[in-house]
Amino acid sequence: MHASFGIKKMSLNFSIKGSDGDARAGYLKTKHGSIKTPVFMPVGTSASVKAVFPKDLLDLEIEIILANTYHLMLRPGEDLIKKLGGLQKFMNWNKPILTDSGGFQIWSLSNLRKLSKEGIEFSSHIDGKKYFLTPEKAILIQEKLNSTITMVLDECTEFPATFDRAKKSMELSLKWAERCKKSFKKRNGYGLFGIIQGGMYGDLRKISCNELLNLNFDGYAIGGLSVGESHKQMINILDSTVNLINFEKPRYLMGVGRPVDIFESVERGIDMFDCVIPTRFGRNGRAFTLKGEINLKNAIYAYDKSPLDKDSDNEYSNKFSKSYIHHLTKSNEILSSMILSIHNIAFYKKMMNDIRESIMKKQFLSLKKKYLKYHDVYKKK
Amino acid sequence: MHASFGIKKMSLNFSIKGSDGDARAGYLKTKHGSIKTPVFMPVGTSASVKAVFPKDLLDLEIEIILANTYHLMLRPGEDLIKKLGGLQKFMNWNKPILTDSGGFQIWSLSNLRKLSKEGIEFSSHIDGKKYFLTPEKAILIQEKLNSTITMVLDECTEFPATFDRAKKSMELSLKWAERCKKSFKKRNGYGLFGIIQGGMYGDLRKISCNELLNLNFDGYAIGGLSVGESHKQMINILDSTVNLINFEKPRYLMGVGRPVDIFESVERGIDMFDCVIPTRFGRNGRAFTLKGEINLKNAIYAYDKSPLDKDSDNEYSNKFSKSYIHHLTKSNEILSSMILSIHNIAFYKKMMNDIRESIMKKQFLSLKKKYLKYHDVYKKK
Repeated sequence: MHASFGIKKMSLNFSIKGSDGDARAGYLKTKHGSIKTPVFMPVGTSASVKAVFPKDLLDLEIEIILANTYHLMLRPGEDLIKKLGGLQKFMNWNKPILTDSGGFQIWSLSNLRKLSKEGIEFSSHIDGKKYFLTPEKAILIQEKLNSTITMVLDECTEFPATFDRAKKSMELSLKWAERCKKSFKKRNGYGLFGIIQGGMYGDLRKISCNELLNLNFDGYAIGGLSVGESHKQMINILDSTVNLINFEKPRYLMGVGRPVDIFESVERGIDMFDCVIPTRFGRNGRAFTLKGEINLKNAIYAYDKSPLDKDSDNEYSNKFSKSYIHHLTKSNEILSSMILSIHNIAFYKKMMNDIRESIMKKQFLSLKKKYLKYHDVYKKK
Repeated sequence: MHASFGIKKMSLNFSIKGSDGDARAGYLKTKHGSIKTPVFMPVGTSASVKAVFPKDLLDLEIEIILANTYHLMLRPGEDLIKKLGGLQKFMNWNKPILTDSGGFQIWSLSNLRKLSKEGIEFSSHIDGKKYFLTPEKAILIQEKLNSTITMVLDECTEFPATFDRAKKSMELSLKWAERCKKSFKKRNGYGLFGIIQGGMYGDLRKISCNELLNLNFDGYAIGGLSVGESHKQMINILDSTVNLINFEKPRYLMGVGRPVDIFESVERGIDMFDCVIPTRFGRNGRAFTLKGEINLKNAIYAYDKSPLDKDSDNEYSNKFSKSYIHHLTKSNEILSSMILSIHNIAFYKKMMNDIRESIMKKQFLSLKKKYLKYHDVYKKK
């Protein structure tokens, strides 16, 4: 099942199989398996996609998941995971895993952050214990985790930020990116992605992007979004950035998002996504359906015999009635989180399959129209 | 898949296929499928076996589950469930379901109980709403739920109780049992069980049993145990009661128990069990293994690469390391409850299969010895 990379040491192998406008359908070969793009990566923060069995992800043909370096370095610790055979073996997921570097999570979760050129000092949100993370350490930790795709350590610029503040932050992230590149150990089928920063300033994004391109990463992420900006601001950043990235490299929009965000981003040339929304919504009683997002806690579903998706192949989508799931949400039954989380991941997987097929057939825009008829949550704003 | 009951209206069809001493291996045919006994029924309190998908129960060949009338009458209500096609259809479980009558749950969960000869007034533990449950209503509610096996409404005698108190309580339960019998609508493949009460007094248990036998129920349960008595007291009650029940009728020990309780009870002629232990322990990080109960939260498992049961056919038992499950419990991941709940149910299922086979082969006592080497939790007490 593992891709062959020949004798020459290559990191990842990415090829574009079709396109429609700027939207691309690609194929990413890695040490732990191949990934069809555009791809949505379910989030497995603490080495578990919350409330979902790995086997059910495999049944859905999920090809890659994300895990959080910040959470895993705090608990159970990268050395334990290395000793247990790496993240794949540890969590019983024999497929690609992308890990973030911890930068964003430190920014959003930890206390007592102290930033210096050298790195970030922070205290654990679990027990207050102090840690000092440097670019080199972030790379080493991810190596110990056995991440298929490693992310550079960056500083996530707060929102809103002045131009000067965003510039300084972006420049620090660039220096860290260079140090990450230097300390990353090349291995067949493993890759290192750079992260474009620059806040909400297109000019800064361009500088960040061009400098990272000079460092020649295996892929490029757009970071620092989903931090409070409007959908329009996010689109503006994409418009000013995406097409600067080499056509041949995978492009990853971090932490995004809802179906409308994904369609808008694919249209602009993004290949990879991750977001907690499918599973977090699932735990909160919310489901994605072809007719939009619904909240199963709503009393209108009390007597609704229809399933979430009668055309699905999966029991959780096609058999349980909305009435039953409504009851489970009201009764705080774990089964409600289980059904809705895997259903939502299945919805996203189907959507990404549809997107890829539509790009191959050059029918992306009509698919987008079909989906967003019900899913454009920003319409009313 | 549904058993055939011919033209004559029969309730349930129970036959003994083998025995070893007082231990029996039986076969219970019902409207919704057949059940090999001795059987352990996983508990699906609010129409969900907590943290377990119905399909995973089917994969384990679980043949019957229990649901709680008290919880279901409060939420979502028996009329809703009837409208949705009965409990089987509602929860997507196309197999037999036994429902208790609500008596025990009112006793243990609700407030403001007011007992009269007519019935019990109580207020919901969810919203304080008042209800009045009578024997006739308890039967009607279970009919609306479409319970395969209905239990009579009884009063669970508190523990400890004086002889006089236990006698009065038992006599009330007897009168209610008679009213339940009268109002139960006979249907092919459905059954009504009486419940033997009498507290910790063997003489009262005998009276209760004999009177219930005169009413000719489809099966007999021993109620009012697991209320705080010692293991020895429980065994004494079994010794003074079980063999009074017709040999031809299924015998059900309610709310029990741990492996040692089950072996001791099977040895005395009990056929059916239910208990929240496998799933509750699962949610608390505890697992049953062939070498006894273990608590995965314990730090000794942090680096333990071994699975819960390497010889199991199921991923949750044979693939996830104790180290990983330890991590999940420490991180409060739902997946920990999911893995341990279904694993524990699988452990019980395997144990019941082993028990049945040992009875057929007249090797029950040697199997008991093998299991209880590690599972006799009462040894130290």
